[in-house]
Amino acid sequence: MKNGRLTYAMAGGGIGSFIGPIHRAALRLDNTADLVAGCFSRSAKDNAAAAKEFGIAPERTYSDWRALVAAEAGKVDFLVVCTTNETHYEIAKAALEAGMDVFCEKPLSLTASEAADLAAIARRRRRILGIPFTYTGYPMVRFAADLVKRGDLGKIDKVVMEYVQGSFRKIDFGKPLDKHNTWKMNPAISGPSCVVADIGVHAFTLIETVTGLEVKELLADLSSFAPGNRLDDDASILMHLSGGAKAALVTSKIATGEENGVRMRVYGSKASLFWDQESPNQVVVRYPLAPDQIYRRKAPSVAPVSPRSIAVSRFPAGHPEGFVEALANIYLGFVKSLSTRKAGDFPSGREGVRSMKFVEAALKSAKNGNKWTRL
Amino acid sequence: MKNGRLTYAMAGGGIGSFIGPIHRAALRLDNTADLVAGCFSRSAKDNAAAAKEFGIAPERTYSDWRALVAAEAGKVDFLVVCTTNETHYEIAKAALEAGMDVFCEKPLSLTASEAADLAAIARRRRRILGIPFTYTGYPMVRFAADLVKRGDLGKIDKVVMEYVQGSFRKIDFGKPLDKHNTWKMNPAISGPSCVVADIGVHAFTLIETVTGLEVKELLADLSSFAPGNRLDDDASILMHLSGGAKAALVTSKIATGEENGVRMRVYGSKASLFWDQESPNQVVVRYPLAPDQIYRRKAPSVAPVSPRSIAVSRFPAGHPEGFVEALANIYLGFVKSLSTRKAGDFPSGREGVRSMKFVEAALKSAKNGNKWTRL
Amino acid sequence: MKNGRLTYAMAGGGIGSFIGPIHRAALRLDNTADLVAGCFSRSAKDNAAAAKEFGIAPERTYSDWRALVAAEAGKVDFLVVCTTNETHYEIAKAALEAGMDVFCEKPLSLTASEAADLAAIARRRRRILGIPFTYTGYPMVRFAADLVKRGDLGKIDKVVMEYVQGSFRKIDFGKPLDKHNTWKMNPAISGPSCVVADIGVHAFTLIETVTGLEVKELLADLSSFAPGNRLDDDASILMHLSGGAKAALVTSKIATGEENGVRMRVYGSKASLFWDQESPNQVVVRYPLAPDQIYRRKAPSVAPVSPRSIAVSRFPAGHPEGFVEALANIYLGFVKSLSTRKAGDFPSGREGVRSMKFVEAALKSAKNGNKWTRL
Amino acid sequence: MKNGRLTYAMAGGGIGSFIGPIHRAALRLDNTADLVAGCFSRSAKDNAAAAKEFGIAPERTYSDWRALVAAEAGKVDFLVVCTTNETHYEIAKAALEAGMDVFCEKPLSLTASEAADLAAIARRRRRILGIPFTYTGYPMVRFAADLVKRGDLGKIDKVVMEYVQGSFRKIDFGKPLDKHNTWKMNPAISGPSCVVADIGVHAFTLIETVTGLEVKELLADLSSFAPGNRLDDDASILMHLSGGAKAALVTSKIATGEENGVRMRVYGSKASLFWDQESPNQVVVRYPLAPDQIYRRKAPSVAPVSPRSIAVSRFPAGHPEGFVEALANIYLGFVKSLSTRKAGDFPSGREGVRSMKFVEAALKSAKNGNKWTRL
Repeated sequence: MKNGRLTYAMAGGGIGSFIGPIHRAALRLDNTADLVAGCFSRSAKDNAAAAKEFGIAPERTYSDWRALVAAEAGKVDFLVVCTTNETHYEIAKAALEAGMDVFCEKPLSLTASEAADLAAIARRRRRILGIPFTYTGYPMVRFAADLVKRGDLGKIDKVVMEYVQGSFRKIDFGKPLDKHNTWKMNPAISGPSCVVADIGVHAFTLIETVTGLEVKELLADLSSFAPGNRLDDDASILMHLSGGAKAALVTSKIATGEENGVRMRVYGSKASLFWDQESPNQVVVRYPLAPDQIYRRKAPSVAPVSPRSIAVSRFPAGHPEGFVEALANIYLGFVKSLSTRKAGDFPSGREGVRSMKFVEAALKSAKNGNKWTRL
Repeated sequence: MKNGRLTYAMAGGGIGSFIGPIHRAALRLDNTADLVAGCFSRSAKDNAAAAKEFGIAPERTYSDWRALVAAEAGKVDFLVVCTTNETHYEIAKAALEAGMDVFCEKPLSLTASEAADLAAIARRRRRILGIPFTYTGYPMVRFAADLVKRGDLGKIDKVVMEYVQGSFRKIDFGKPLDKHNTWKMNPAISGPSCVVADIGVHAFTLIETVTGLEVKELLADLSSFAPGNRLDDDASILMHLSGGAKAALVTSKIATGEENGVRMRVYGSKASLFWDQESPNQVVVRYPLAPDQIYRRKAPSVAPVSPRSIAVSRFPAGHPEGFVEALANIYLGFVKSLSTRKAGDFPSGREGVRSMKFVEAALKSAKNGNKWTRL
Repeated sequence: MKNGRLTYAMAGGGIGSFIGPIHRAALRLDNTADLVAGCFSRSAKDNAAAAKEFGIAPERTYSDWRALVAAEAGKVDFLVVCTTNETHYEIAKAALEAGMDVFCEKPLSLTASEAADLAAIARRRRRILGIPFTYTGYPMVRFAADLVKRGDLGKIDKVVMEYVQGSFRKIDFGKPLDKHNTWKMNPAISGPSCVVADIGVHAFTLIETVTGLEVKELLADLSSFAPGNRLDDDASILMHLSGGAKAALVTSKIATGEENGVRMRVYGSKASLFWDQESPNQVVVRYPLAPDQIYRRKAPSVAPVSPRSIAVSRFPAGHPEGFVEALANIYLGFVKSLSTRKAGDFPSGREGVRSMKFVEAALKSAKNGNKWTRL
Repeated sequence: MKNGRLTYAMAGGGIGSFIGPIHRAALRLDNTADLVAGCFSRSAKDNAAAAKEFGIAPERTYSDWRALVAAEAGKVDFLVVCTTNETHYEIAKAALEAGMDVFCEKPLSLTASEAADLAAIARRRRRILGIPFTYTGYPMVRFAADLVKRGDLGKIDKVVMEYVQGSFRKIDFGKPLDKHNTWKMNPAISGPSCVVADIGVHAFTLIETVTGLEVKELLADLSSFAPGNRLDDDASILMHLSGGAKAALVTSKIATGEENGVRMRVYGSKASLFWDQESPNQVVVRYPLAPDQIYRRKAPSVAPVSPRSIAVSRFPAGHPEGFVEALANIYLGFVKSLSTRKAGDFPSGREGVRSMKFVEAALKSAKNGNKWTRL
């Protein structure tokens, strides 16, 4: 706290980062917390530039995250980890053990056991651990989950899910690879999985969050289509869920022309729903014997249906909200838990562990000839 | 021929039939051929009613398809088979052997060997065999195939395909099952597969037709969700195609609220395409570094791209064409072959055999614990 | 009648015609009537070619429409007039007076008094007069009209209507004008109005048909944007309707990139509806305090709502119908009246007269400095 | 400035306000400026609550805006005016004259002469005046303007514009009117115009901003449909623009079921464009003889086309931005001018005056029987 305001430090996410600016904007949007410290880079010069750009005191930047944790634990209210994948675990672990509350980018770690370790430490040390499975923060995703919970869809039988990007097609035109996509293809940084760990985990978390069901086992067919890529950049994954439901997921980074295609269809015995991240302010609900219905964020009709959706809708219906609001909603839940010291409405250790089990099961299934593999 | 016009007989497809009226309308649309004979039912009374309704001579209706074949072979130009699945093989076989050209509904048979048998008979007897894989008759599907063939998409890596209906959700509300959907659940009539054989074959044929690739092996997860149904009514199928491409297909009859959702995405190294049967007059093409493009049926831009699309577009751009035109296009190819006595631009024995191999592989894969199974 | 089938003759609409083929296809689709005679051209050679192409006896083609009327009145069941605008009146008049039932393209005439004359002759001679305001034949347009009639929209306050094409933009690229668009710019053929008479009349008729209200007065701002065009090719028209409703209509042939954009929004006190001709199988209904609803052609939900819509839906929901079915629906109403000898569910003299009053009022308003002008 | 950060005061926009929270969020999103003072209400109690909620010093809240201006001029960097319409002029005038830079909600004033007065004072006193014509802040609106400017559309001939809401339909169901909509119907607060001044001005400003043309004269048909409303709540307005272009605008608050439907079509001689505020991250461009193109915010294809669009795009393509980003973009231009002391890329006095001339012309035209009226 500083002048009655929450403060946070950041690891990674410096100037030129893809995701760092979105975190900072999301935290500003609701006046949630002020950035006051950071290890944005291993370079002192870069940190100085970042300090100036972000308006923080130069002496509170650090070229080593260990120094940041040592100096800032107990001073800032929480740490946001936006580094590349291979360092998530060690940074989050050290910070949690130093008593910091931590908000860490996905994938939470490189292995499920690391994720379980972090969840256990957080539990033991009574620390709050948040993870930006940002899509679960969209009001209409929460609406969808409420609709399922309320029984409007009946028994869920089938989920059809896509999370497709064409990003790896943008780098194969004789130009050198761009930095952002390059490290994702590098196992030393990205870990043993690329597309499944990078975006597949979002899709997986959406499935479990919206349906309220658990994925029991999966069967994965992974491919590496991008020239020079040794990690998975395309995946088709079948899943069996609790209660007998089934799911089919396609996730890809070679889906040419797609920007960020997160599309979810849930088919229940009474109704189905459809949500598309690129038109995030609506959910379409379809019935066997009635017209389709389009529900819109914060429209009057939504109010009785989904208090959780209304609670995280800022602006009037017809005034589109987007990605930054979704992340800000996750943060609202996270910072609420900072004071209640209890779990809240945001993805945490459970989702971190589940998603890493999903990644490991997918890799194992693929390695073993696409066999069913339990999570 | 009759007064210089082609004539045909019909087996099945009588009053109250789902598909019969569409065949007759498609054949009228282009003045393709006149219905002059038929075995619409085993009931003489029903046949009499049909004769009156369809304007054919009562003495040219038959209560046994064998009698129809015996009497009409050599008199009509071709036979259209619209009966339920279990009789396709025997009727088509008898007709071909009697020297008739045959246009037979899908699935062509109950087994791949039966399909191969029909194809062989047709070849040996130099008969024309047509199959209404109707979606391949849409102008913009032909446009899509031309685009792939011309190399605009580059190397095809991934196909994501859906053919989803909610029809089996419409019958589970305390009412007796409707006739049309009931027989599809009955193995004695429908054969060993329901959703895969009934609509999955359309999706499969679209994949092979549009990409020009061959499915080499597949892995299928089949389910029976509709109450009382013992056959597959939902399927997730992964496929490996020639050239290293992969495909994921979801096909279902329990996709609540869906009417006839045939949606195809093909991702190539240079571009991708998207086609949706419920908006059939357009194809969206997307690129890594250029704006999306929407091509419309018979719009000027389509002309240089796809002569095959233009050839089967009847009405001006902006004046929507639909399902009946697609089927009529298949018939145009079929009747052209009646005079050339050569293969033409319509699905025939090859597609019939391939699609039944697909069905059998899917059933086998599902039975064997979702193992990869060669076609 | 011939062998118990209706027959018709055609004036205009020969080989190469834009609209002729659609009429013939629409009449074939439902086996409605057989083409047996025609004056397709003033050239005997062209008529011979048409006779061959259309399968009619050469001696029943005529190089003068007067000869056709003289010879075919009493022989065919009706005459379809597909000639250019300037001849509609004289042909329809002669045919009606000769006792023929007539189906005449829009605009029915060049002036409102001519239209009134035709309507009067038809009435006096008890002849059936039909006009292809084709868009009123779409099932979902009839659904929309039923919805309004049933009161679901409450009191209608505002209609926003577009009928926009970019056709006159396709001819200004250094190439000679194409024949179809050229004559529409020629007052001697097209009459005193181009866009208003050619497509504005469709929009006008849709407004009156769907709302059940009457346009009382209008105010029109007409323009000629296409190079070399002296007639109106773009119009913005405000209207006052019975009951206090208002309408705004934009109709244009210089709406670059538009194919056939007929889009209708009707706002009532309780709900609004939206229909788009390029996605004709659905109507969106929106409410103040409830989710949007999408009604689809022949879906179960439509049945209780709109018997008129179901009555003209041929194929199952999800199997798109298009423009030719809409025209065929108009013809179904027309030929039903041939036997009942009464008015039916199709546009006739009233719509012909109203639409020509609309054209004249628009021209007059524009000429007088965009003043309100009564119809 | 405070600690090197910009600060601002706010008039109106307190707890429960519709638009106040969006301003504050927009100013936080980019860390643009800190709220440090305000006159949120005439009630000291409400101001105290606001001070607490917004984290400002209680002594810097004021129950009279005059007191705020007197005390804060020279202390804060600018004043944001979010009060109801009738006070815009007096507050903005006093603040400008006191030397404050002012960001004032639309409509800038109740009359054009007031607006001109404010623009003149700002000019004379060298003050920066900003107005949230927020829609002009959307990246893809700036893209559209760039496209027109670069000549891609050719000569602009026609603009079709809608800004339609159904808000006045939500209050006519036996419940007391809600506060937000009630004052808009009250001439003493709203001024002489309701829908034209409230949202019509946005549409007008979009037309002039995107086309780069000037509206020369207009003709307006205004209505009051909502029960008890004496001001305009529905308008159809025809316009003549510089260069011979024409526009048709529909704006309404009784467009049942619409949330915030801002839809713009611009038809040029070479191409047309379409933008819809409810899908704000894309622009569709259509051509006479080429496929439609869909441009997306921050997609690679946009980069060479529109530096202005890229400059105000924060997040990656496929990660939707919305309304708050659009307003934040306006503020970015505004605060840049605070240091340059020059005009910038945001709506200012010119747009304020033009939009009020538009309102007055519309009222005058309607009063005089819908005659053409010069702006």
